Amino acid sequence: MHVVVNAAISIDGKLSTRRREQVAISGERDFERVSELRANNDAILVGIGTVLADDPHLVVEGSYRKRRQDQGLIPTPHRIIIDSRARTPTDAEVLDDEAPTYIIVSESAPTSRQADLEVEGANVMIAGRDRVSMPAALSALADSGMSSIMVEGGGEIIFSLFEANLVDELSVYVGSMLIGGRDAPTLADGDGFIDDPTQLQLTSVKQIDDGVLLQYDVETTASTYDSID
Amino acid sequence: MHVVVNAAISIDGKLSTRRREQVAISGERDFERVSELRANNDAILVGIGTVLADDPHLVVEGSYRKRRQDQGLIPTPHRIIIDSRARTPTDAEVLDDEAPTYIIVSESAPTSRQADLEVEGANVMIAGRDRVSMPAALSALADSGMSSIMVEGGGEIIFSLFEANLVDELSVYVGSMLIGGRDAPTLADGDGFIDDPTQLQLTSVKQIDDGVLLQYDVETTASTYDSID
Repeated sequence: MHVVVNAAISIDGKLSTRRREQVAISGERDFERVSELRANNDAILVGIGTVLADDPHLVVEGSYRKRRQDQGLIPTPHRIIIDSRARTPTDAEVLDDEAPTYIIVSESAPTSRQADLEVEGANVMIAGRDRVSMPAALSALADSGMSSIMVEGGGEIIFSLFEANLVDELSVYVGSMLIGGRDAPTLADGDGFIDDPTQLQLTSVKQIDDGVLLQYDVETTASTYDSID
Repeated sequence: MHVVVNAAISIDGKLSTRRREQVAISGERDFERVSELRANNDAILVGIGTVLADDPHLVVEGSYRKRRQDQGLIPTPHRIIIDSRARTPTDAEVLDDEAPTYIIVSESAPTSRQADLEVEGANVMIAGRDRVSMPAALSALADSGMSSIMVEGGGEIIFSLFEANLVDELSVYVGSMLIGGRDAPTLADGDGFIDDPTQLQLTSVKQIDDGVLLQYDVETTASTYDSID
């Protein structure tokens, strides 16, 4: 499974304010790039925190749909929500019928909530006991036929993926602003690394809109998803 | 007073791990740049958190000293510690005799601690009631004859300066690594902005060592230190 993480941050690493309110960090040209990246992957993945805070739609529009269809693909990529306790609201935008949606829950998720989500058309998969195990989740998605995933956040999911050494590429748009806040969500939250930060290899530096796009390859050293699960 | 903030962060905005342990984020060429920047300012400023975590020396060495002396300056810039409760250890590196050191405390700092620090040769100044007021501190330093300050952190001090609209320039070295951690210190902590992030103007993008140096001008819109105090 090829995993690319994409996010827009302020220069101090924040995804949004401490109230989790979205900030317009990037501009038009970067939106285009993100749409292109979405269209080039089999699936778009976010965590439940992002669904609850932003209610994203996670689809591509217009010419991207046409191109995908010309390639024999579904018009817009699969949508994946990492949602340990099955808290995705039944009226969430990701549950409309524009693309298949997979909700990955843990064994601890209430079965009634799982049933509610299935009624709304979601494919509910279980991976992990109390929390979703990212290696198990990616393994299950690979078994469902997906081979590339774009991860759009938030910081907890992104750190979990780096911690499990599952990320291949990282694209970060650094907007020219400073948000601040010791409690504001950052690109990578979770417990954080203590002794061994993940080492990255800078592959591209581009000025886009009034900020900078930095792209990295991840130097994967340890196990991969299919050897962990 | 001209204020430049300089820091090295991981791509996720962290200054260090959640344990406040220093990580080698930048390399040799960036160290050179930082020495140059130090040598070009009247003073180097850090917060007490940085003193307690890293015990920095905050001096320039060798050729920089000679150049400064040739210019009629003291060999290495003034050192400034923002230390509301006068917690600087009496054996801190910044209290050696290689450069004058100013410790800015608040009115709430124990007078016995202030006296201890003065015995060690520090110039203790009071600015603010319970916490150091950054506008008052910079005003006092300007009165002492300083006209340019380089701020090296940490995230609490940096946010305080941005919040008070006192920063002119921001230089950030983004190292090619991911540290993670919702509790790890970031470039700008404090309470953070809610509605109006500070807008920056990107002035330079340079690849240095295996990372990127991003430089910004700050679009100062509101009051400056001398109109607040």
